[in-house]
Amino acid sequence: MKIQSPPGMRDFYPEDMRLQNWLFEHWRGVSRSFGFSEYEGPIFEFLALYEAKSGPGIVSEVFNFQDRGERHFAIRPEMTPTLARMVAARANTLSRPIKWFSLPRMCRAERPQRGRLREFFQWNVDILGMDDVLADAEVIAVAVAFLKRVGLTPEDVVVKLSSRALATAILTGTGLAEDQVEPAFQLIDRAEKLSPDAFEEQWSAQCGQAISAATVLELLAGTDLDACLSMAGSGSGDTGRGAAEEFRALWDNLALFGVQDFCEFDLRTVRGLAYYTGPVFEVKTRKLGLRALFGGGRYDNLTQVLGGPRVTGVGFGAGDVPMLECLKDLGRLPTLGDELDVFIIDADAELFPKVLEIAGKLRQTGLTVDFSYKRQGLGKQFKQASARNARTAVIVGSELTERGELTIKNLTTGDQRTVAAETFLADPRGELTNQKTVASR
Amino acid sequence: MKIQSPPGMRDFYPEDMRLQNWLFEHWRGVSRSFGFSEYEGPIFEFLALYEAKSGPGIVSEVFNFQDRGERHFAIRPEMTPTLARMVAARANTLSRPIKWFSLPRMCRAERPQRGRLREFFQWNVDILGMDDVLADAEVIAVAVAFLKRVGLTPEDVVVKLSSRALATAILTGTGLAEDQVEPAFQLIDRAEKLSPDAFEEQWSAQCGQAISAATVLELLAGTDLDACLSMAGSGSGDTGRGAAEEFRALWDNLALFGVQDFCEFDLRTVRGLAYYTGPVFEVKTRKLGLRALFGGGRYDNLTQVLGGPRVTGVGFGAGDVPMLECLKDLGRLPTLGDELDVFIIDADAELFPKVLEIAGKLRQTGLTVDFSYKRQGLGKQFKQASARNARTAVIVGSELTERGELTIKNLTTGDQRTVAAETFLADPRGELTNQKTVASR
Repeated sequence: MKIQSPPGMRDFYPEDMRLQNWLFEHWRGVSRSFGFSEYEGPIFEFLALYEAKSGPGIVSEVFNFQDRGERHFAIRPEMTPTLARMVAARANTLSRPIKWFSLPRMCRAERPQRGRLREFFQWNVDILGMDDVLADAEVIAVAVAFLKRVGLTPEDVVVKLSSRALATAILTGTGLAEDQVEPAFQLIDRAEKLSPDAFEEQWSAQCGQAISAATVLELLAGTDLDACLSMAGSGSGDTGRGAAEEFRALWDNLALFGVQDFCEFDLRTVRGLAYYTGPVFEVKTRKLGLRALFGGGRYDNLTQVLGGPRVTGVGFGAGDVPMLECLKDLGRLPTLGDELDVFIIDADAELFPKVLEIAGKLRQTGLTVDFSYKRQGLGKQFKQASARNARTAVIVGSELTERGELTIKNLTTGDQRTVAAETFLADPRGELTNQKTVASR
Repeated sequence: MKIQSPPGMRDFYPEDMRLQNWLFEHWRGVSRSFGFSEYEGPIFEFLALYEAKSGPGIVSEVFNFQDRGERHFAIRPEMTPTLARMVAARANTLSRPIKWFSLPRMCRAERPQRGRLREFFQWNVDILGMDDVLADAEVIAVAVAFLKRVGLTPEDVVVKLSSRALATAILTGTGLAEDQVEPAFQLIDRAEKLSPDAFEEQWSAQCGQAISAATVLELLAGTDLDACLSMAGSGSGDTGRGAAEEFRALWDNLALFGVQDFCEFDLRTVRGLAYYTGPVFEVKTRKLGLRALFGGGRYDNLTQVLGGPRVTGVGFGAGDVPMLECLKDLGRLPTLGDELDVFIIDADAELFPKVLEIAGKLRQTGLTVDFSYKRQGLGKQFKQASARNARTAVIVGSELTERGELTIKNLTTGDQRTVAAETFLADPRGELTNQKTVASR
């Protein structure tokens, strides 16, 4: 019986893993530079957690199962419910703002097909317990800092930014009934994927006749930030004015953080998830068909929905799969090889025990060290050292048994020299650092 | 509705996560220093993969489910089957030795109770495609290097080491039938947990009368390495001699790697898993009731069992839970706090926009930087900086607007000085590194 890998899941061979770790290290590094702390949660939760947030329809979208106690669980399809549960459990003791990030693995019960993975990793960055749009600006600044760090520019990607509060003020100011706002958002979120006719048909069916589909599309596409802010501010009393002021403050904070050049106001950005309550944003690629790389926004009621105390929040999620695909398509993926500090070579198979001894000592210092498992000629061992991208070769030859010396060869420059084994092993890091200043013989 | 965390699973709040990351970094660092490459696999596999390795009984020990296509999957309870599957799939192209490690998350369908977790992480280190006991010695050396790195000594822990081939030669040499060897290993593996009477009863029932239980127990407990090797070498022809020579070579290699002081030959170490074929070992605590921290050995037939070509292997797994518990009980866990390079403080709320600007610039250099979200007095901001373990405070006061200067305070030494904002922001890392050499004013 030959067992296949599960469909829609990835195997990470070392070359794939180096790339994942490169991405994870950037995610971690950027998050930490903004003062965020890492957290994690369980790979599965009670199914009820996801049902409470997303409704019973979620069951068919997650991998779910029962334990022997007949409790229902689901492998996590997203991190926000876990985050809300964890924060709610310690709402009284966690000091504000709660600035947390995570790099969770998660699964969705997709039908396996090209580009639709069942398992992925998603960078999550959130600030909870802080009402100020400063928090919204800061999570967007984190996203942009990452984009810059991996070499993307405003020509490559754009943060599309709006606010559900602002859009609500504008739509209700134009005559839409309040209970039609959420259906309108759902439709607007899908507008790009619909033909104008289909949009019009669904708009009439779901959002009534108070505004025509044509008016909405024009309003959404053609209105710039200042016009929107003044429309929201004048049209619908205090709420609208509040939303406009808040969005202006957010926009100004983005400038202070030095990331406004990546951002574009776009009233069509509403996000399809009903739990967003304020500013919302997406990172999209400019070329490559405007794929969404990040999605996020403010969710001030989520912990309450899950049965906890009210803790406001704002954050985003960014999947590893579209991010790596985007970088690959733009030719921005790094070339990452295996790397070694030292490869130890014997000039004579009899000396191999000495190789093991030296390897043991060098590895204790934390240097990355390897050697050939096969006893073979010098040439083949040097070839192996170079295939492993070793920076230095330490050669164990007759000079060790005769004079207590090792030959150290810098494999980048080709320089080599001999050094007393005792001196070298007493401070191998120091000796290797000095090496480049030593002349070739 | 208040939703609980799933039983037997862990939430990692930031303080827990720092400890996990500390452990993961040591696992990674040690593995890499020995020239191992990291890999990963999917969180669930076809259930058949685990059934092929462990028999149909495994179903009740794993979390398993079907997708809409009615295919059966299980959340991975261990990594070795995934490793064997991945290696078998590329057996023709992977260059030997295959030295791989992984830090997988995995689940077992335990009944939730104290100390029995359903989810854990397990460090896996394996060398495949290499028959030589040098590989066995090297994975043991990796384990010992980790133990040393976290501050454990031979007084704290011991690597109990034996060989199934050696034990087979000795037991069959004493008269045990070959088909009784595996039942005997299963029983010997559980011997510590059984009363002498229970052991005797089960021995007679399962392993026949060729050797008495008392003889076996005496043989297992009282025989030292040299006696065992000579018994195996003389008793059972070529196979026994081969097993004895091989174990001697392993033992000598452990000395060359400088880790023999952590190792003890113990014929009672057989490991309960039938797929081990050669040397086997466990790391146990000397105090704390001899808990097993690591378990491993040679498995030369596993890829074949799973339907692939023959690729020999040796490796170990070490769970995070017993490791962290052991370090905690021995008082060897590090104290890990939140850490920041810079906390920016405003001397006047009006200057707060400057704080954001400076934060944006410093974070771009990769420095970890934060500030207070609340506009409050200097004293409270300094308190916050110290609560976050910030190394440096950058104070934005009237000297910035008047003279273009910032005040930099080293929060460890208390030294402070003013510096031109332009100079500081042009090379903040350099300025912060120099700081400790600057006298207090």
